[in-house]
Amino acid sequence: MDIIEEFNHFIDESSEQEKEAMKLLLNSLKAKRENTNLTYIASLLQFKTTLLDENLLEMEMPNSPLLDNSLGIVHGGLTATLLDTALGTLASHVPGNKKGAVTVELKVDFLSPGIGEKFICRAEVVHNGRQLVRMEGKVRNEKGNLIASATGTFFKLPE
Amino acid sequence: MDIIEEFNHFIDESSEQEKEAMKLLLNSLKAKRENTNLTYIASLLQFKTTLLDENLLEMEMPNSPLLDNSLGIVHGGLTATLLDTALGTLASHVPGNKKGAVTVELKVDFLSPGIGEKFICRAEVVHNGRQLVRMEGKVRNEKGNLIASATGTFFKLPE
Amino acid sequence: MDIIEEFNHFIDESSEQEKEAMKLLLNSLKAKRENTNLTYIASLLQFKTTLLDENLLEMEMPNSPLLDNSLGIVHGGLTATLLDTALGTLASHVPGNKKGAVTVELKVDFLSPGIGEKFICRAEVVHNGRQLVRMEGKVRNEKGNLIASATGTFFKLPE
Amino acid sequence: MDIIEEFNHFIDESSEQEKEAMKLLLNSLKAKRENTNLTYIASLLQFKTTLLDENLLEMEMPNSPLLDNSLGIVHGGLTATLLDTALGTLASHVPGNKKGAVTVELKVDFLSPGIGEKFICRAEVVHNGRQLVRMEGKVRNEKGNLIASATGTFFKLPE
Repeated sequence: MDIIEEFNHFIDESSEQEKEAMKLLLNSLKAKRENTNLTYIASLLQFKTTLLDENLLEMEMPNSPLLDNSLGIVHGGLTATLLDTALGTLASHVPGNKKGAVTVELKVDFLSPGIGEKFICRAEVVHNGRQLVRMEGKVRNEKGNLIASATGTFFKLPE
Repeated sequence: MDIIEEFNHFIDESSEQEKEAMKLLLNSLKAKRENTNLTYIASLLQFKTTLLDENLLEMEMPNSPLLDNSLGIVHGGLTATLLDTALGTLASHVPGNKKGAVTVELKVDFLSPGIGEKFICRAEVVHNGRQLVRMEGKVRNEKGNLIASATGTFFKLPE
Repeated sequence: MDIIEEFNHFIDESSEQEKEAMKLLLNSLKAKRENTNLTYIASLLQFKTTLLDENLLEMEMPNSPLLDNSLGIVHGGLTATLLDTALGTLASHVPGNKKGAVTVELKVDFLSPGIGEKFICRAEVVHNGRQLVRMEGKVRNEKGNLIASATGTFFKLPE
Repeated sequence: MDIIEEFNHFIDESSEQEKEAMKLLLNSLKAKRENTNLTYIASLLQFKTTLLDENLLEMEMPNSPLLDNSLGIVHGGLTATLLDTALGTLASHVPGNKKGAVTVELKVDFLSPGIGEKFICRAEVVHNGRQLVRMEGKVRNEKGNLIASATGTFFKLPE
């Protein structure tokens, strides 16, 4: 049975929630096709990035069934993924950084349940050292409720 | 255009990598259908869990294109998701814990690039307190190379 | 030989730096005598506390030979002691906290060498939960240079 | 009034606990005099170091009134000082490290109250990278009870 047949079978018996999940997955594949720089996970989680200035960035993640943990709130790992991506993206663009940066360590504090329509991560540079970039970030929902907070250390890749 | 048509169009023009990603996504939806306790993200990342004893658990995540970050290695956020899930699952099952546990904080140390066929997280209870469970975990690839290490604090949900 | 004799011998042969250290130690013992709530370490490190409002506190530590690490800058452990004391003091005084609070975990980021005449820690409440207080703090010298940054989790002692 | 007179006055009126503290302070000054590499804080806290092999070190801190926090247990900042010193000492001696290492970040988990006659920190190298050394350490009392646990990142000073 090929993938199209398999897919048709699955859709025939699918619930509304499954159809919605399927659409999200398909849309993410399309987004990735149009922007090959995008990773699958960023496209699945529908990250939208706004660089506010060279030390400040916002990254948004809309809520969707894909995000749920077993308690019906956003999976902490995905909040961590948003934070790692936002902090890492900004750390890769600090002045003087030519080759990007990799995460050395990330510490996430989960402050209140991940409930909301979307989650907005605000990332900030704390210290731009010679080889390390020290970052912090906060995740809020659309009402401004603080969901999570993080600090991270990033290592600048050598030129 | 309905989802089946949309899907057929997408497949017609898809690369081998896209077909592979599509299969992974479809399989994860099927896995989720068969086990509704499963979250979409756990099914997408194909986590497999083995409880070794009441203080020790292993969780495996096979590598796949879905895991790549923009440098072609496993996205740190997904390593964090594996760690949070493994540590949280074990923290939810410690003796005397009736209602599960939520993550208070997670600190991940990224030690070497996430390269390999699969990633195995070994989670351990460090301290099972009255309300907090303190955990640690290590992620290795199939060759035993240490990829990441984490500590986490979990709060037992009140009965 | 009793302690007074021993002390006289030590002073007779002491360098200026040793005399200065001796004075600091003696002054800290006197400070502790006058305020028995004070711990020896807080008196040795000459902490001065200002509660700015119920969510904000400043704690100062003047530099002294007692603070040096082997590289001639402030020992990271003492910066951590300042941070733990400042964050813990504020966490013990958040609204609704009757019995004080103990440190669950403290994560300190060392950002630049601890050089200066004095070190000022500004502690802030990030989230005052039912049982946990989540804190952050920054340490600057008298010129405003950022030396260290920390996050901490504190557990409210039950009434 | 000179320091000797001041000291005599203080001793005349001092309690037994004050005399004991005074002796500790004097002994630490003497220890520092004999070993000028020693820092005042390491001599005050009476650290004793044993290098077990190139990846493993033990550092002991005997209990004393100087260590008490306001609850009568060891001040978390001093447990952090023991951990930072032990991890940093070992990180400064890893193979290939010529110039020592400075702390990038230290995360301490406080697991049970710091009660005991002495506190033994066991430090271990987790990963010895090109520029970063990743460490972990555990603090136990003389009965083997786990008091605290830590992870730390250290930066090798350039030659």
